[in-house]
Amino acid sequence: MPINFLGDIMNKLEMTDLIVSSKISKGLSWETIAKDLKVSPVWLTSACLGMNSATPKQAKAIADYLGLDDTVAEALVAFPTKIWDQAVPTDPLVYRLYEVVGVYGDTLKEVIQEKFGDGIMSAIDFSMEVDKIEDPKGDRVLLTLNGKFLPYKSW
Amino acid sequence: MPINFLGDIMNKLEMTDLIVSSKISKGLSWETIAKDLKVSPVWLTSACLGMNSATPKQAKAIADYLGLDDTVAEALVAFPTKIWDQAVPTDPLVYRLYEVVGVYGDTLKEVIQEKFGDGIMSAIDFSMEVDKIEDPKGDRVLLTLNGKFLPYKSW
Amino acid sequence: MPINFLGDIMNKLEMTDLIVSSKISKGLSWETIAKDLKVSPVWLTSACLGMNSATPKQAKAIADYLGLDDTVAEALVAFPTKIWDQAVPTDPLVYRLYEVVGVYGDTLKEVIQEKFGDGIMSAIDFSMEVDKIEDPKGDRVLLTLNGKFLPYKSW
Amino acid sequence: MPINFLGDIMNKLEMTDLIVSSKISKGLSWETIAKDLKVSPVWLTSACLGMNSATPKQAKAIADYLGLDDTVAEALVAFPTKIWDQAVPTDPLVYRLYEVVGVYGDTLKEVIQEKFGDGIMSAIDFSMEVDKIEDPKGDRVLLTLNGKFLPYKSW
Amino acid sequence: MPINFLGDIMNKLEMTDLIVSSKISKGLSWETIAKDLKVSPVWLTSACLGMNSATPKQAKAIADYLGLDDTVAEALVAFPTKIWDQAVPTDPLVYRLYEVVGVYGDTLKEVIQEKFGDGIMSAIDFSMEVDKIEDPKGDRVLLTLNGKFLPYKSW
Amino acid sequence: MPINFLGDIMNKLEMTDLIVSSKISKGLSWETIAKDLKVSPVWLTSACLGMNSATPKQAKAIADYLGLDDTVAEALVAFPTKIWDQAVPTDPLVYRLYEVVGVYGDTLKEVIQEKFGDGIMSAIDFSMEVDKIEDPKGDRVLLTLNGKFLPYKSW
Amino acid sequence: MPINFLGDIMNKLEMTDLIVSSKISKGLSWETIAKDLKVSPVWLTSACLGMNSATPKQAKAIADYLGLDDTVAEALVAFPTKIWDQAVPTDPLVYRLYEVVGVYGDTLKEVIQEKFGDGIMSAIDFSMEVDKIEDPKGDRVLLTLNGKFLPYKSW
Amino acid sequence: MPINFLGDIMNKLEMTDLIVSSKISKGLSWETIAKDLKVSPVWLTSACLGMNSATPKQAKAIADYLGLDDTVAEALVAFPTKIWDQAVPTDPLVYRLYEVVGVYGDTLKEVIQEKFGDGIMSAIDFSMEVDKIEDPKGDRVLLTLNGKFLPYKSW
Amino acid sequence: MPINFLGDIMNKLEMTDLIVSSKISKGLSWETIAKDLKVSPVWLTSACLGMNSATPKQAKAIADYLGLDDTVAEALVAFPTKIWDQAVPTDPLVYRLYEVVGVYGDTLKEVIQEKFGDGIMSAIDFSMEVDKIEDPKGDRVLLTLNGKFLPYKSW
Amino acid sequence: MPINFLGDIMNKLEMTDLIVSSKISKGLSWETIAKDLKVSPVWLTSACLGMNSATPKQAKAIADYLGLDDTVAEALVAFPTKIWDQAVPTDPLVYRLYEVVGVYGDTLKEVIQEKFGDGIMSAIDFSMEVDKIEDPKGDRVLLTLNGKFLPYKSW
Repeated sequence: MPINFLGDIMNKLEMTDLIVSSKISKGLSWETIAKDLKVSPVWLTSACLGMNSATPKQAKAIADYLGLDDTVAEALVAFPTKIWDQAVPTDPLVYRLYEVVGVYGDTLKEVIQEKFGDGIMSAIDFSMEVDKIEDPKGDRVLLTLNGKFLPYKSW
Repeated sequence: MPINFLGDIMNKLEMTDLIVSSKISKGLSWETIAKDLKVSPVWLTSACLGMNSATPKQAKAIADYLGLDDTVAEALVAFPTKIWDQAVPTDPLVYRLYEVVGVYGDTLKEVIQEKFGDGIMSAIDFSMEVDKIEDPKGDRVLLTLNGKFLPYKSW
Repeated sequence: MPINFLGDIMNKLEMTDLIVSSKISKGLSWETIAKDLKVSPVWLTSACLGMNSATPKQAKAIADYLGLDDTVAEALVAFPTKIWDQAVPTDPLVYRLYEVVGVYGDTLKEVIQEKFGDGIMSAIDFSMEVDKIEDPKGDRVLLTLNGKFLPYKSW
Repeated sequence: MPINFLGDIMNKLEMTDLIVSSKISKGLSWETIAKDLKVSPVWLTSACLGMNSATPKQAKAIADYLGLDDTVAEALVAFPTKIWDQAVPTDPLVYRLYEVVGVYGDTLKEVIQEKFGDGIMSAIDFSMEVDKIEDPKGDRVLLTLNGKFLPYKSW
Repeated sequence: MPINFLGDIMNKLEMTDLIVSSKISKGLSWETIAKDLKVSPVWLTSACLGMNSATPKQAKAIADYLGLDDTVAEALVAFPTKIWDQAVPTDPLVYRLYEVVGVYGDTLKEVIQEKFGDGIMSAIDFSMEVDKIEDPKGDRVLLTLNGKFLPYKSW
Repeated sequence: MPINFLGDIMNKLEMTDLIVSSKISKGLSWETIAKDLKVSPVWLTSACLGMNSATPKQAKAIADYLGLDDTVAEALVAFPTKIWDQAVPTDPLVYRLYEVVGVYGDTLKEVIQEKFGDGIMSAIDFSMEVDKIEDPKGDRVLLTLNGKFLPYKSW
Repeated sequence: MPINFLGDIMNKLEMTDLIVSSKISKGLSWETIAKDLKVSPVWLTSACLGMNSATPKQAKAIADYLGLDDTVAEALVAFPTKIWDQAVPTDPLVYRLYEVVGVYGDTLKEVIQEKFGDGIMSAIDFSMEVDKIEDPKGDRVLLTLNGKFLPYKSW
Repeated sequence: MPINFLGDIMNKLEMTDLIVSSKISKGLSWETIAKDLKVSPVWLTSACLGMNSATPKQAKAIADYLGLDDTVAEALVAFPTKIWDQAVPTDPLVYRLYEVVGVYGDTLKEVIQEKFGDGIMSAIDFSMEVDKIEDPKGDRVLLTLNGKFLPYKSW
Repeated sequence: MPINFLGDIMNKLEMTDLIVSSKISKGLSWETIAKDLKVSPVWLTSACLGMNSATPKQAKAIADYLGLDDTVAEALVAFPTKIWDQAVPTDPLVYRLYEVVGVYGDTLKEVIQEKFGDGIMSAIDFSMEVDKIEDPKGDRVLLTLNGKFLPYKSW
Repeated sequence: MPINFLGDIMNKLEMTDLIVSSKISKGLSWETIAKDLKVSPVWLTSACLGMNSATPKQAKAIADYLGLDDTVAEALVAFPTKIWDQAVPTDPLVYRLYEVVGVYGDTLKEVIQEKFGDGIMSAIDFSMEVDKIEDPKGDRVLLTLNGKFLPYKSW
């Protein structure tokens, strides 16, 4: 039972419900909202699903755009506790990403550390994009992850 | 204890040992080998680590390049059983990728399915690249995943 | 706690409750409904249990047939998050299927890859049927899985 | 560490190694062997991988066909302890089958029990076949499971 | 969260509550009810706890005996989804049974398969009885399991 | 890695190997040995598989019968550490017993405690028998567990 | 979700709530209540927390002492299903006990079986006491477990 | 794979083997050795099984007593890494202790903290004894744990 | 489902909600409250989040400071049951601490025991501070843990 | 089975064995070596235990200091795969650190994010020190963690 210590602030689940309801009733897509607010669709969606925090200014812009009040904006600003329940995800779309980490994890370690030295790709100083490549043999998903390389240091 | 039913064929662990030893003693990088053999460094590394199979022609080219004999080439051709032991990986480089799946899994489902409809990104009809973006504030890792979209169908 | 980000749309559990109640009160079987709507009983049941999405047209046909309103149809159209709670299922009928995967998994890998090369059987571009073979020594269940073969590719 | 209490009898892992080595060196496929011995390729493979026992006559036929001696035949006759190490399999081909059980388990329970009453499909009085359906849009795997229905009984 | 897709039918938990309340208020034992209804106490209890289904006739007899209405009878007839939450049970009475399986599992496999050949004891075509053996040094529980032997078959 | 602190005494695995090899080469069954030594086949098998200890006299009788030396007798006398590796067993014969505990655990608790009061059936002061009931519709396995009832006491 | 099949009888959680509330409002300690009722504080507490059953007479005495009615007494008499949720407890006081079992489990097996022969210490025919040893360097907890030795027997 | 970073020092498993072999060949018991060396049998056994370290003087006394050389004494002095493999132990003697922690953990927390305030019983500043209480109805094991109470402090 | 046996006393979750709501509406930080009450911010926060108990005097001071009534003070005084649900935490901030324990656990054991002898750092007689080190290349978190060394003792 | 893809390079386990043996035979401590080589004892120990890589210059200095050859230096330079086997560590010294993360994880999140904003403390751009505080009431361990704060950023 993860707890966000938010006191009277609306919790992230209620916030997501209000945002998604408004988005559907207005016939909007994450992509449209993101383009109009000049942020990335992936980041916008993650903030609206409660997995990232927005600045007060971003939060107000999102809430205003969707016709929602300040309690939603406050909830967007709150720092989330990032919890997931399934160590191994079952939804096929998410599992395929997990499978990529399992199959190619050691490979990526070899290739990244050969290029950069001993260290990691940050998941915090990080961004991600989703693109669609149209193809007559079947469209393709292009997923781009961009993270700062953090080298290990001795001390 | 996963088993590759390979009979007398060299197993993938021995193959990887021979390949990596030759690579180190010749002072080669995955990138150089891949460029010379005109394949992707990520795919080449995954095949040499035993997580993908090569065609007989590719396998022969890799073995020849590294000065290794036909038993290595045969092992590269064998179809691997893809096993990983840690449901949650502990190595920090690999864990950060797992964390991205945990934090952004639902977000990617929203964004991909908004763009493509109900379905998934294939992890089989799939490729991946690693690039380095030099940056005075700290270089960045650019990871690009490219998978065919597979729609669910009714029947 | 899996979440379907559905906003005001009826969630899949409520949808299933309404569908099953109507089906029972009308004395219908999955097989009859499927035959009348010209879809497969397995697919129809999976959609009604919330594990697959229907097209708007299919959804409307199902809801109309059962005398249910548009909110049920909308819920049938929503893209499901496919979650199961038991990594090892306990219900004996489902466990026996899990046991088949455990006992015959490596065997199927050998036989399928011998026939098709390195690759997998898709669980997305996929259909399944259940038939009854009457037999005086005890009737038999015939389960037919039909999935597209997806070959691994180098890049 | 599962134990087969086989005393001096060759264990199943050594048996599989000998069988697969002979099969590869003779350039045979499971399908050819099965056809010549008039058994199913799936059953033959499972027995050779140590997940089913053969009758003494079948075992002798298999060993003779492959030019292997009586110790292999004895090992084929021994009753196996059926063990698998991964509650959730990681190899993509096997995982897809596991995913089918997860996604469609409740559906199959509904459809089978509607057709047959309360009970299960046996995984013991059971057979399975793999077929290839050629298709210009991509060949398809046809997997057929055939198990006796076992009804629950009161007492 | 196991789901019985029962629509409006009373769920098994409510059914059990009503049955046990009536049983206690009437001062009945499982043994008495079973004797009067001419069924086994173990089977009767398992059906009333929701782990087995009754025929409509049995269900009506049980409900009538306890002064409960038809909704309870319908719930007894529904096919249960058999779920247990603890892979390793903690209640000492149940754990001791689990311990017997752990300590004597391989032994029973040896002894049963020596007597019957390769196969299993069915848990579906199965019955069980509990008896009390009075003994001045301490009474003893006699538990008798009776299951059909199912032989493995090649195909 | 369970450890039996046996110093120079032969360990239980080696003991089992010698016993089973001798049993097979002499063409004996557990049942025959047990009958000749006037002990139960289940207990004899469990002692020979290393899950129970024998008295020095019993141990000598078993070793002599099988033509094995005193080191085997000593190993039979050593007190075993009872370890099993699979919390949920996978072998179908053993799993069916586990399933019986899962499906009928609460039922047995109800029925036993109704008969005996609050307490448990001992798994230590305990014996078990396997019998074969011949039946034209398929032979049946009869498994009889006999354990002392241990009542809870206040203090 | 463990279930006590108690029908209309107050469940153990509600019982514990009422008992603890009354105990706190009357300013009582477990020790005082136990002394006045001439039972052990450990047993009394375990019964009031729902992990042991009381006799009707004991239950009535406890309820009367605390000014609670017969429904509480009935709940104290009900036979509990003993469930704990954390295989490895996290509360530091309880974890230290778990650690003692982990660190000293094999040691206790050696020492107890050297003294008593092959067998176990019963956790059913069992009692436990907690004492305080005052010490200027820091008071000490003295925990005394007293269980009947149960020898293994052959049959 | 727990690692003791002991360099050339004999590891604890080899040490235990030598100690137990010598103990058995000399016909000694833990109790006798402990009495002669004026230490507790429980502590002595835990040190000899590798779960506690001895002082150099104690270690020399133990090695001398058993006729073992200085490498054994050095191994007794090494600080152990305390590892156990089974989160839930399966050996019945050890499981019963685990069960006591599960059933009585919350009770002990209540009773200890009522007596001592908020804090824990140390498992480090700790000792334990095993005694035998002879009883015509069956001997009893008396287990005494003695640990320093450590209060929580604010800061 | 961890249980605090608190009877009518407000539970720790409600207490935390009230405290955090008051803290936010008054625009306070943990640091300010701690400075004004002359306690450490880490300890104060842990008590307010329900993971430590306060003395009655501390509790009253905290409740008064925040304008909350005596029921909150009583809840702060109650001894907590310290439970966490995720054996491996997923929130990135908490996971990084877990990773430090995984990567450096054996190292810290080596370094601490070299300095202090065989023993541990107490997590009970323990305090912790968080400081901020401003740095133009990026501020740094300074975390200081201070625990009493507890040596193992023989007995 | 974690794999370091090191080809002919000495693996990290052999490296640690050689380093620790030399350290013990020369009577050195981690602290002395670290002081003489002007690095931190914690970092030095982690590199020698195989959980961090050294620069070629550092590696040569360490190997020279201990009288070990270049193969050890090469092994120190290799980038480690950081693996730990126990999700919940059992050694008491390491478990206490794990317990601190469990008990104080949410508290540290509150306190750090209040001071720094939404983000984490890096475990890569990170150092750690161990100090001893002598105290007549019992010496204390002072553990200091110093990690760069990494803020989350939108994109």
